[in-house]
Amino acid sequence: MPTGVWLLGGRGSVAVTCLTGAAAIRAGLAGPTGCVTELPELRGGRALPAWAELVFGGHDLVTTPLPKRAEALAAAGVVPARLVATLAGELAALDSEIRPVPEAATQRETALRVAGDIAGFRRRHGLERVVVVNLTATEPEVPRQPAHERLDALEAALAGTTPVLPASSLYAYASFLAGCSYVDFTPSAGARLPALAELARQRRLPYAGHDGKTGETLVRSVLAPMFASRHLRVRSWSGVNLLGGGDGANLADPATNAAKAASKQRVLAETLGYRPEGATRIEYVADLGDHKTAWDLITFHGFLDTPMRMEFTWHGCDSALAAPLVIDLARLTAAAHRAGRGGPLAELAFFFKDPVGQAPHSLAEQWSALVCFVRELGDA
Amino acid sequence: MPTGVWLLGGRGSVAVTCLTGAAAIRAGLAGPTGCVTELPELRGGRALPAWAELVFGGHDLVTTPLPKRAEALAAAGVVPARLVATLAGELAALDSEIRPVPEAATQRETALRVAGDIAGFRRRHGLERVVVVNLTATEPEVPRQPAHERLDALEAALAGTTPVLPASSLYAYASFLAGCSYVDFTPSAGARLPALAELARQRRLPYAGHDGKTGETLVRSVLAPMFASRHLRVRSWSGVNLLGGGDGANLADPATNAAKAASKQRVLAETLGYRPEGATRIEYVADLGDHKTAWDLITFHGFLDTPMRMEFTWHGCDSALAAPLVIDLARLTAAAHRAGRGGPLAELAFFFKDPVGQAPHSLAEQWSALVCFVRELGDA
Amino acid sequence: MPTGVWLLGGRGSVAVTCLTGAAAIRAGLAGPTGCVTELPELRGGRALPAWAELVFGGHDLVTTPLPKRAEALAAAGVVPARLVATLAGELAALDSEIRPVPEAATQRETALRVAGDIAGFRRRHGLERVVVVNLTATEPEVPRQPAHERLDALEAALAGTTPVLPASSLYAYASFLAGCSYVDFTPSAGARLPALAELARQRRLPYAGHDGKTGETLVRSVLAPMFASRHLRVRSWSGVNLLGGGDGANLADPATNAAKAASKQRVLAETLGYRPEGATRIEYVADLGDHKTAWDLITFHGFLDTPMRMEFTWHGCDSALAAPLVIDLARLTAAAHRAGRGGPLAELAFFFKDPVGQAPHSLAEQWSALVCFVRELGDA
Amino acid sequence: MPTGVWLLGGRGSVAVTCLTGAAAIRAGLAGPTGCVTELPELRGGRALPAWAELVFGGHDLVTTPLPKRAEALAAAGVVPARLVATLAGELAALDSEIRPVPEAATQRETALRVAGDIAGFRRRHGLERVVVVNLTATEPEVPRQPAHERLDALEAALAGTTPVLPASSLYAYASFLAGCSYVDFTPSAGARLPALAELARQRRLPYAGHDGKTGETLVRSVLAPMFASRHLRVRSWSGVNLLGGGDGANLADPATNAAKAASKQRVLAETLGYRPEGATRIEYVADLGDHKTAWDLITFHGFLDTPMRMEFTWHGCDSALAAPLVIDLARLTAAAHRAGRGGPLAELAFFFKDPVGQAPHSLAEQWSALVCFVRELGDA
Repeated sequence: MPTGVWLLGGRGSVAVTCLTGAAAIRAGLAGPTGCVTELPELRGGRALPAWAELVFGGHDLVTTPLPKRAEALAAAGVVPARLVATLAGELAALDSEIRPVPEAATQRETALRVAGDIAGFRRRHGLERVVVVNLTATEPEVPRQPAHERLDALEAALAGTTPVLPASSLYAYASFLAGCSYVDFTPSAGARLPALAELARQRRLPYAGHDGKTGETLVRSVLAPMFASRHLRVRSWSGVNLLGGGDGANLADPATNAAKAASKQRVLAETLGYRPEGATRIEYVADLGDHKTAWDLITFHGFLDTPMRMEFTWHGCDSALAAPLVIDLARLTAAAHRAGRGGPLAELAFFFKDPVGQAPHSLAEQWSALVCFVRELGDA
Repeated sequence: MPTGVWLLGGRGSVAVTCLTGAAAIRAGLAGPTGCVTELPELRGGRALPAWAELVFGGHDLVTTPLPKRAEALAAAGVVPARLVATLAGELAALDSEIRPVPEAATQRETALRVAGDIAGFRRRHGLERVVVVNLTATEPEVPRQPAHERLDALEAALAGTTPVLPASSLYAYASFLAGCSYVDFTPSAGARLPALAELARQRRLPYAGHDGKTGETLVRSVLAPMFASRHLRVRSWSGVNLLGGGDGANLADPATNAAKAASKQRVLAETLGYRPEGATRIEYVADLGDHKTAWDLITFHGFLDTPMRMEFTWHGCDSALAAPLVIDLARLTAAAHRAGRGGPLAELAFFFKDPVGQAPHSLAEQWSALVCFVRELGDA
Repeated sequence: MPTGVWLLGGRGSVAVTCLTGAAAIRAGLAGPTGCVTELPELRGGRALPAWAELVFGGHDLVTTPLPKRAEALAAAGVVPARLVATLAGELAALDSEIRPVPEAATQRETALRVAGDIAGFRRRHGLERVVVVNLTATEPEVPRQPAHERLDALEAALAGTTPVLPASSLYAYASFLAGCSYVDFTPSAGARLPALAELARQRRLPYAGHDGKTGETLVRSVLAPMFASRHLRVRSWSGVNLLGGGDGANLADPATNAAKAASKQRVLAETLGYRPEGATRIEYVADLGDHKTAWDLITFHGFLDTPMRMEFTWHGCDSALAAPLVIDLARLTAAAHRAGRGGPLAELAFFFKDPVGQAPHSLAEQWSALVCFVRELGDA
Repeated sequence: MPTGVWLLGGRGSVAVTCLTGAAAIRAGLAGPTGCVTELPELRGGRALPAWAELVFGGHDLVTTPLPKRAEALAAAGVVPARLVATLAGELAALDSEIRPVPEAATQRETALRVAGDIAGFRRRHGLERVVVVNLTATEPEVPRQPAHERLDALEAALAGTTPVLPASSLYAYASFLAGCSYVDFTPSAGARLPALAELARQRRLPYAGHDGKTGETLVRSVLAPMFASRHLRVRSWSGVNLLGGGDGANLADPATNAAKAASKQRVLAETLGYRPEGATRIEYVADLGDHKTAWDLITFHGFLDTPMRMEFTWHGCDSALAAPLVIDLARLTAAAHRAGRGGPLAELAFFFKDPVGQAPHSLAEQWSALVCFVRELGDA
């Protein structure tokens, strides 16, 4: 089943790492490290499209050619330079499938052009279905409007010249129009508006998100359950994230930052059953490039309230952590779509900081849910 | 069901913290932080003896009175000084139940006297059953002998004047003779010899162990599954444990150390499915007292083998981490005994670095197994 | 030479630790750990008043008696409980010398009453001279006014009913009126206004400050010179300070915080000769109490711009770090006063984050300057 | 003044980084980051040979050509790949000056051949003088023999067929025979035998060493004086060094390790004036390659013995830290030689863990001594 993966932000670091890696793996030049769907527990899933069946395309405002972007990532230590050199031809070919972002007088018109681009991609490659994955920069939080609540109100508003949806949600709308599933790897609004949920339900289209879990929150999603199951009382949990790269500058902006930091502390509160003291900060440090350093200090009480503490430092390369998960999500969402699943895919919580639907916050429970999900898809 | 808890090493730091805490909780002076059996998921277990039903006794070579030992722990910041002052009377009363360690010409005779002490304790307090918990210092690894393999050979050897069992195993033997279950909180041999397993099976007595999981290995048991389930390749995992206290001096001894360090790296290999590079060291630093600092460096590969790393530091108070687990283990093992369970209790793997029986190494899976176990005991 | 030490904020954590410690050391119950003036390199300084010659008094808004405050510090692990118990009588006696803060209709009147309190203290105890040390909470930055620039303008403005000076500066003014030297252990304005400098010069009174260097900045003042003297290029230096206690809540306030964080980054720029990327954050975490945890990440380039990094975590007890320095500063400033030194004491830069006068930023150079200063005072 | 730099271990990582860097700097392709002699405080020193005057040669057992070695270092992230590509021709030219290590029947004969190689190099390039720098692998500690004590006894022993000197010392002997100064960047014995000191004195040849200070000890040499000058009592100082690369495997060997670890703890004792508890471990972790991670935990007491702690992690690239210092040492030693200085150069203690002669252990004092030294050489 040839399956399309349409990347919004197709020339960004995560997308380019993803495209380079997928090409390398297909060519037998690299192994699938970091790809969850290649683990023995999930590999049995015949329901998932094979690597050879994946076809990539996307939209981006940026026009720098993919090979050039890949070289920049190689210089930054995100992908191996030798791979980029070897795969230059493949990347150049992929480049033609990354389209400029359409613009029009009304958001409805823009959405139709986006949907048209995706439909053309599907036709050209004879794809059974396409998964749209949002990899664009995090948006500031958007005030809710009445038009977000119901599909009919939304459709009316989209026809006007005043924009009513943030870009991520307009893309979700366009994806659903085009009959595609939608995955939001960012913390932006995306498909999370009731009007869009209504549309996805109507058309039986699955969607997943939000905010790929690639560093500090990943670690927190195993440490917090550890403290909880040992009945150790977490008194404070403070974190600082230092990051460079494009998203770093964006996230250090207080408006964007607030949403992200709040969601990080929420994970703790929901896992522990109470909200420990402390905050999470995000700081932009250009020198770190695509690498991120997170430091967390956890103070906790043991028996008879004896005070103790733990700290950890995480030095990760965000693009290299995110890229394989994008492929995993595309494969899993395509399989869910094929199996007739519509609406939010809570079973993909394993991948997200702020998962859609009702999902546990412990990574281990999320993992179990994912394993079951793939098994059921295979049986379906 | 009045239940005895017989502590081997009853005047050691863990035992004294345990006794002080149990008295404090019963008197309503402290909450059950750190007690796993007081979590909502396990508390339903009517099968467990109530706190008020627990009666404590034990053996120790040391004769310093409990109130004095508790004051020393208060000075070291392990237990609150005000609790020790308030509970001085209770601790003095408990003191009379800590007996000197019997010694005799043959190990058989010693075992009978140990069993006799426990039986007397049981009789005096009208206890339904007694759980023996080994909290003595870690022993060096012991070479296996033919007498360890079969019960009849062992019984013959015990009658001789040449010691055949290490102290921990002789205690396990005596516990089984006295019809008691046995928990080994140390990495020593304990009940792990085939001849003792045979005896436990014969008498339908449950036993659990080994080596309470209270710090670095606890953290490893959630981080290693995190790396595994994200298909991140761990390249090296190195650790150093700095610890003071009595056990610190003991563990820094290369012979003792080797066993413990090896078991720590084994946990990693079994969870990850391969053995990463690196070693775990234990160093004695008297200034740290009852507190332990562990530092781990983990280097790993993500997508396309991009190198990344994580480090953590754990500053824990070992006695305050171990003591509530001792009470948990006593309650759980007593309930298993009552429910007719004999042999190794793999379901208690949650508590141990090196669990008996077939058990998963992921803390989350161990937790699920524990929740099921308590539910089944309640239903039985 | 009996010498008075007048503590502004005399019931605060630093002051109470200082008073308890001074009493303990005089009684032979504790050694002078943390007291720089007790090091062999400075001890020769016969110019310094002896411990037995120091007499303590002060002002505070708070009225909780000193023994009670000391007990609270003992419970928080800042001072040993046994010392507080033993010294209860001494602390109660000291309590009567901590006066309420005078209030009056004009700042001039308030200053006169403050000066009057100090003069009374001096008379009662027959003191040769008094050093006033500001230990009150950090003030928000104050906008400069014309009256701050010249002494005559200031004196005119003080007679009005509109306050013109922040409290720290009013205290400096009062101290100089009373013929006393003044030390500011906080980052507040204190004696740093030109009008006050004029007054100090006129009266030949020495003053020192600002902002006691007790943790992260102390470490930075040795690490930054290390990078500089090895010609390693610091690319970014980011820090986070987590602190509880009264000053924590105060400093987490953005207005107060800004001044302090800016001064922390300035130290780096001045030592390195360029301003590395990065910021310093201060966060309030009540659970940390009087203890502070600072974490710094430094990224730097070596030969051929090879990227490297260093991180450190500092877990310090601020009051226990500050208190002995308060005594050092009182002894040193009294000796300078006696030797006829007036104006800013740049030679005390060793003690401060943001020293008055022209001073080097490297701790080692500051130390050399201090050693010379004491030697010269002794020779004078 | 054309000056030769003869590198023992000329194809090792440090040497190759040094050669690549020197070529890059001369070609204007890189700046002198990490070169201490390029700091403003030392640059005035007209006494130092200019970069353009340095000519490199050396000995090595290994025969892999320099360009290949440089490529391997580029792949490991030690030097930039683009520099290695650009400088391929230069490196190939340098390759011919790296000679195989001579071997002969007696150590005397070997020394003469080594001296001959160096003399030939000097003649070929018309060099005013040559500095020999030892960059070979660390040797195990060598038992002292009578022949090490006096030059005449040594010369007699060298004529025999039983080796009497370790390689590093034989090279020092050969260097002195050839009229060259000698720098030992390793912890090996080198010129530290009384017989060799006698020879250096006789011939007025300067020598320096031992053991380049590039990571953990560098940091310790500023932190230990910080604790000392603040009168904070260091209770324990524990460290672990994880390192890959050739020297890692070598140093993890207990015999070699012991010497190095002991010297690391000695630095602490000499700076603090007492020996804190704790040990330093070296572990080989191949995955770290040329990078080294050191973690130190320091526990200390403040006022009234309040316990506190600090930890740091250093992630450095050893070759990139060492290489510029090799050039610095060559320039400085050549200038000392030219100025007629013979014997141990204690003024170069700034560069070494275990400096020859009487030298302070504080980095700041070592820096001051170095600045004076260069100033005096310039005046001479």
